[in-house]
Amino acid sequence: MKVLWVFAHPEPRSLNGSLRDAGVAALREHGHEVRESDLYAMGWDPVVRGSDYGHDPAERLLVGEASERAAREGRLSPDVRAEQEKLTWADTVVVQFPLWWYGLPAMLKGWFDRVFVKGFAFGLHDPDTGRALRYGEGPLEGRRALPVVTVGARESSIGPRGVSGDLEELLFPLTHGTFWYTGMAALPPFPVYAADRASAEDAERETKALVERVLSIPDAEPLPFRRQNGGDYDDDLVLRPELAPGRTGLDVHLDR
Amino acid sequence: MKVLWVFAHPEPRSLNGSLRDAGVAALREHGHEVRESDLYAMGWDPVVRGSDYGHDPAERLLVGEASERAAREGRLSPDVRAEQEKLTWADTVVVQFPLWWYGLPAMLKGWFDRVFVKGFAFGLHDPDTGRALRYGEGPLEGRRALPVVTVGARESSIGPRGVSGDLEELLFPLTHGTFWYTGMAALPPFPVYAADRASAEDAERETKALVERVLSIPDAEPLPFRRQNGGDYDDDLVLRPELAPGRTGLDVHLDR
Repeated sequence: MKVLWVFAHPEPRSLNGSLRDAGVAALREHGHEVRESDLYAMGWDPVVRGSDYGHDPAERLLVGEASERAAREGRLSPDVRAEQEKLTWADTVVVQFPLWWYGLPAMLKGWFDRVFVKGFAFGLHDPDTGRALRYGEGPLEGRRALPVVTVGARESSIGPRGVSGDLEELLFPLTHGTFWYTGMAALPPFPVYAADRASAEDAERETKALVERVLSIPDAEPLPFRRQNGGDYDDDLVLRPELAPGRTGLDVHLDR
Repeated sequence: MKVLWVFAHPEPRSLNGSLRDAGVAALREHGHEVRESDLYAMGWDPVVRGSDYGHDPAERLLVGEASERAAREGRLSPDVRAEQEKLTWADTVVVQFPLWWYGLPAMLKGWFDRVFVKGFAFGLHDPDTGRALRYGEGPLEGRRALPVVTVGARESSIGPRGVSGDLEELLFPLTHGTFWYTGMAALPPFPVYAADRASAEDAERETKALVERVLSIPDAEPLPFRRQNGGDYDDDLVLRPELAPGRTGLDVHLDR
């Protein structure tokens, strides 16, 4: 594998830091190539600004248009292009973060906001049908993406009927709306529950489990999201009425 | 009303900017008080760092502990305290943003990450039972919160069975996981669909609708999320099996 490991935690001496160290080391020991984006260590700037696109501040900024034009013309800011180059190189992306407010830390969200621009991560069309290539097709197709996420909540309270909502559904904007949207196969998340209260034994067990998970990425079964252009959605991009009978919510977009 | 209007768009000359201007003006015309947090204009820093808590970089940073201690001792950084003071003052919070990657822009996510710390926005316990006061109870109880969100997708593709997932479920980490968690009543979002392609007529119609929505906030029916301590969840914080029969996913946490 050629793995890009994106890490978004402010403290390398944390449980997150040791999980990352163990995962990266195990991959290298097994002959895989690893590159890292340690966002805090890099001093990554997570804020989308016109300056990313060389935009003239006197003019009204249309983020979508300006970012697409800059991407197509190779004029994105150098820090963004460096991340895009890593993504282009990789066949596997590990995205590791603590769950804050049931989502990504701002540092990581802004990595996607700035790097995944139209013209790089999406915006392709089928030359024959003219259809947008997204959700299962797109510029990042052929890659697999694994979320590694530490959670303060215990497993029951963030499970299918737990008070906080099911973790897999809370991560849908990442797994489906970002990975799958751009063509990447999304792997089931690797969660560490009750991470704030992890004992040394817990940490050891989770570290071992993570190493197993990352080494088995090539054999893992991705989440079975439906393809936008696979026939399951109508021309308004609504799931056909005969599919997922009796099911509701985000889960209908999984073909299982 | 005492309204805090949080705005997270990089371009004041945008559709978002004119919606905000119209909403704030209408509130003031009707005698309501409005304070603003225009995050881009303020140069808000969205990144959680130990320096928020006066943390010694030589020591390992435990974000939860360090932030709670700093909050209780009044030592959070001045920009965070200024936002907390606005929240304490307000009885109504409007949070306006463009939907990026099916979530909040990093700039806005980092407002929650930094401002909503334990000891300010959560962390209270019932003095009699010892139970955590969250999801319907908590330090921000008594406030109402309205998300105003512009979306690139057309309505059908981000509706209940649209390919992108239902907008209300995509926003669950904000409405339920943040507003409701801290005790605020979450109002149904005000969405503007196909915002990138809005004509002048579309903008006029949406502006009028937004003004009506914000003026009617006191009469609006909040999303009927269940209270953590209302008897619907068991001691493992799992929804009791007899509730929401035949329903799945995040929607089971709504009592309807």
